[in-house]
Amino acid sequence: MLTRMSSLFLRTLREDPADAEVPSHKLLVRAGYVRRVAPGIYSWLPLGLRVLRTIEQVVREEMDAIGAQEIHLPALLPKEPYEATGRWTEYGPNIFRLKDRKGGDYLLGPTHEELFTQLVKGEYSSYKDYPVMLYQIQTKYRDEARPRAGILRGREFLMKDSYSFDLADEGLAKSYQLHRAAYVRIFERLGLEYVIVKATSGAMGGSASEEFLAVAPTGEDTFVRSPGGYAANVEAVTTPAPPARDVEGLPAAQAHYTPDTPTIETLVAFLNNDASLNRSGLRRTFTAADTLKNVLVKTRQPGKTEWTLLGIGVPGDREVDMKRLEAALDPAEVALLDESDFAKHPFLVKGYIGPAALAANGVRYLVDPRVATGTAWVTGADKVDHHVVDLVAGRDFTPDGTIEAAEVREGDPAPDGSGPLEAARGIEIGHVFQLGRKYADAMGLDALGPDGKPVRVTMGSYGVGVSRLVAVIAEQSHDDSGLIWPRAVAPADVHIVIAGKTDEITAGGEQLAAELDAAGLRVLLDDRKASPGVKFADAELIGVPTIVVVGRGLATGVVEVKDRRSGERTEILLETVVSHLQELTGTR
Amino acid sequence: MLTRMSSLFLRTLREDPADAEVPSHKLLVRAGYVRRVAPGIYSWLPLGLRVLRTIEQVVREEMDAIGAQEIHLPALLPKEPYEATGRWTEYGPNIFRLKDRKGGDYLLGPTHEELFTQLVKGEYSSYKDYPVMLYQIQTKYRDEARPRAGILRGREFLMKDSYSFDLADEGLAKSYQLHRAAYVRIFERLGLEYVIVKATSGAMGGSASEEFLAVAPTGEDTFVRSPGGYAANVEAVTTPAPPARDVEGLPAAQAHYTPDTPTIETLVAFLNNDASLNRSGLRRTFTAADTLKNVLVKTRQPGKTEWTLLGIGVPGDREVDMKRLEAALDPAEVALLDESDFAKHPFLVKGYIGPAALAANGVRYLVDPRVATGTAWVTGADKVDHHVVDLVAGRDFTPDGTIEAAEVREGDPAPDGSGPLEAARGIEIGHVFQLGRKYADAMGLDALGPDGKPVRVTMGSYGVGVSRLVAVIAEQSHDDSGLIWPRAVAPADVHIVIAGKTDEITAGGEQLAAELDAAGLRVLLDDRKASPGVKFADAELIGVPTIVVVGRGLATGVVEVKDRRSGERTEILLETVVSHLQELTGTR
Repeated sequence: MLTRMSSLFLRTLREDPADAEVPSHKLLVRAGYVRRVAPGIYSWLPLGLRVLRTIEQVVREEMDAIGAQEIHLPALLPKEPYEATGRWTEYGPNIFRLKDRKGGDYLLGPTHEELFTQLVKGEYSSYKDYPVMLYQIQTKYRDEARPRAGILRGREFLMKDSYSFDLADEGLAKSYQLHRAAYVRIFERLGLEYVIVKATSGAMGGSASEEFLAVAPTGEDTFVRSPGGYAANVEAVTTPAPPARDVEGLPAAQAHYTPDTPTIETLVAFLNNDASLNRSGLRRTFTAADTLKNVLVKTRQPGKTEWTLLGIGVPGDREVDMKRLEAALDPAEVALLDESDFAKHPFLVKGYIGPAALAANGVRYLVDPRVATGTAWVTGADKVDHHVVDLVAGRDFTPDGTIEAAEVREGDPAPDGSGPLEAARGIEIGHVFQLGRKYADAMGLDALGPDGKPVRVTMGSYGVGVSRLVAVIAEQSHDDSGLIWPRAVAPADVHIVIAGKTDEITAGGEQLAAELDAAGLRVLLDDRKASPGVKFADAELIGVPTIVVVGRGLATGVVEVKDRRSGERTEILLETVVSHLQELTGTR
Repeated sequence: MLTRMSSLFLRTLREDPADAEVPSHKLLVRAGYVRRVAPGIYSWLPLGLRVLRTIEQVVREEMDAIGAQEIHLPALLPKEPYEATGRWTEYGPNIFRLKDRKGGDYLLGPTHEELFTQLVKGEYSSYKDYPVMLYQIQTKYRDEARPRAGILRGREFLMKDSYSFDLADEGLAKSYQLHRAAYVRIFERLGLEYVIVKATSGAMGGSASEEFLAVAPTGEDTFVRSPGGYAANVEAVTTPAPPARDVEGLPAAQAHYTPDTPTIETLVAFLNNDASLNRSGLRRTFTAADTLKNVLVKTRQPGKTEWTLLGIGVPGDREVDMKRLEAALDPAEVALLDESDFAKHPFLVKGYIGPAALAANGVRYLVDPRVATGTAWVTGADKVDHHVVDLVAGRDFTPDGTIEAAEVREGDPAPDGSGPLEAARGIEIGHVFQLGRKYADAMGLDALGPDGKPVRVTMGSYGVGVSRLVAVIAEQSHDDSGLIWPRAVAPADVHIVIAGKTDEITAGGEQLAAELDAAGLRVLLDDRKASPGVKFADAELIGVPTIVVVGRGLATGVVEVKDRRSGERTEILLETVVSHLQELTGTR
């Protein structure tokens, strides 16, 4: 394939687009791969479309290889299946909704669990039909609150979504592993640096869930990893709980007058410095970790109007991480209390809230796993300027359960004992979920078993962000001059620059391009009437991995072959350049 | 490629779907190619998706061959560009509209003239950049009032749309011819029977326009053709006007008392039978064609609320064809008058409306081209029970212009003199339009000319209904037993039926499938535990062009090769069957 830049629909830009912050966004726009139509909505220009289609094909091949079957569902979907599962409501403002001319409710599909479930239910009836894995590579829509970074977080995007249908948990585990392995192959083929992290399953429901995160400092997702190989999404990190201790013989709880201590900092300073406290036998040094901070929030279930109070208890040296809290409470909505909430509930004494008032007033109270039975805490006494010391969990108060809401810090121990955690940032490129029977329950998907009795089907859901991958690869593979595509996804194998205006040089470039084309290489030929400087800059920006410069060297029978990534230049004899490039590009 | 029916996501149906009327709809659903999700919204199952992708690839190859460049635009589009051209309003209820979470107006793109114009405007600036042809194969949306016939007229569908951008009319003519020729090649490759008809350009605006119609009795479009090769959409048929005649010496117009003649039929009967009329010198026989029927309608421009009266004059032997009238007045809306309209305008004397009252009251009056200068008519005298005879066009009344609104009849002469017209039905599969400068004007698309002055760009717009083609091919190529795919689009090259339960027969089928797969054929292998009868019926229904039956003949070293279209069966020796099938399927 020979593509001439003299007629290619491509205009590179010297300036970064005003709205671009991350390198992939800047470079994909400047190099003419994509163009913005509206926030989070982009057009693909010729070179961008080539990269996108190549990635799509890699994904397709690996899905076919595990026996998944490709189908294609609509993007415009009726409301009813999403109502059956509750997601019509749960998605809130995050999906695009519309009405047709008859007033029927529709949405633009953000993901297709309901439709695949409905489809399989319509086609399959017997246990003999299962298992089956189906996938599609299809345009999806989400009305993101903050579309950002070009195609990295768009509102219209291309996704590969697949779904597995099994009769038993072991089957689901196998389908899950097949997908996980296919994703590993996909991301390896695309040359990505990535980690697989434990993940919460969010609005998808279900149990086992892992995310594939491409490592990138510009990533929106923070994850943690340990030297021993543990990796998890921050939302999914679990806290090792200390063993429950016997409460017998522990000091009794005592309320103290602790004036002007509405914050943890003022409280700890007071505890360590106040003479009267020391007199009462508390001859020890307190840290923030000895205090129990009670944060009050309110939650609301999807589709409901009323809010419910919820108390969250975490060690005082940690903040509540709202993203972790939201993930733990999903799909419920969470908000901090405002002044009117406090006014409505006078038992909530700001700065001095303790477990006692919550229990007395029927407020659900969830604590960090570190607040184990037998641990003793300094916490609010539900009275201004008063705290309780040595309040023992399981003796003096009994939480309604635990919750993963406290912030995770670098240096925290990995839950599997594999060492201290360090934080890094990543971009979600794939996820694998064991949905279980949530959707089959909602839609009534059963198979008739060998004994004539119905067997409820168990499902998995698996996604790869195909269009996002174009940006992710660009994010991981670029330099100051432009993009550097891995061979597997490059829009061409070779970029020939005709560097000179003589007939000989032009003819030499044309002839080489024709020979490479005939040899099966995909050639991008810069045959424009532009200066060599402009052409070199564009070649660097566009990022084809091998650049061939046909210029003055032609007189002595050589052309220059430049490796875009290393910058290394080699002079190659004209007679051998075709076979040299075939070797280099792996096309022979 | 080897596809096993034992695991293929395919369940054929014995019964036609309840909502299906046309053969393609029935068969594509029964054979498991598509499934309905909502009115006009379908899912593609594995075999259907294969046919769709194959057609898409044929279209892509032919577009690439004429130098059009593939890009991909979003389906979710902001309102603004469509407001700039007025189509946001003109489309009325035929497009899907929605709001995003911030209240911004969006639509689902029905066609992308505005966006391509905007894109080219953003990238190109100089006359040196032109010409350029761009295309996409992309999902489109129209909120059809009556989605019908499965994927034949859907609300979500796949289309190839391309756009040409030229500096001069000759360039546009060339781009148009390139597309026209590419479409001829596409439809030839797909084995379609089709005609190219002159067309009106509808809401697209512009001048030269042709439609490609697949001939099908179930088609929604009526077209006419002549023995001499004329073909046109009924809306686009032009009426040969008689030459203008000298009005000198023609009999004077006379008003007559014609009691109880509010219809053409009663009027003609009266004219030919009334003695008093004969006495007044009208000794001739009248036919309906001698009368001038004036039909009053009202029209409304897009986005306006007020209606305007319009008089349409046609020979009394013809009805006004509302579809032709609508096409002639597009994009204005047309409606018949109701009683309140007549009440409002007492000068309109129902059954006796004549040109005189229209002219006197400032009502625009358009006539059929047959109402040429010098022709004489019997028409209403604007008074109950009165008509005027020998009212001469150009002498006694002067219309505001002509309009193509009269019905076209079989036997009418073709406008190019190529003989009498006959009517047939077809399905639109492609259209080519010379848009001219309508969109460039609306969006301000100029190129800087060599003299430094701006040159307004002229455009063409060209469409192929890719997903519709799947149904159109099925419509033209099927029999009572099922689908019959042309080789170029078949979901497989060979369908092997294992017809028997012995180990030998099973092994023989498996081995043949493996050998054909290795030889590069796409094989559909029916390895299900089902009776030969069920398998044969499914093979006929699915419609792969060559069916190979591996059964009892295996004992004597033969398999049966059946041609799906002709039904012809041939016994082929096992040793030669692979090469025989390679020949047959053109894969060698």
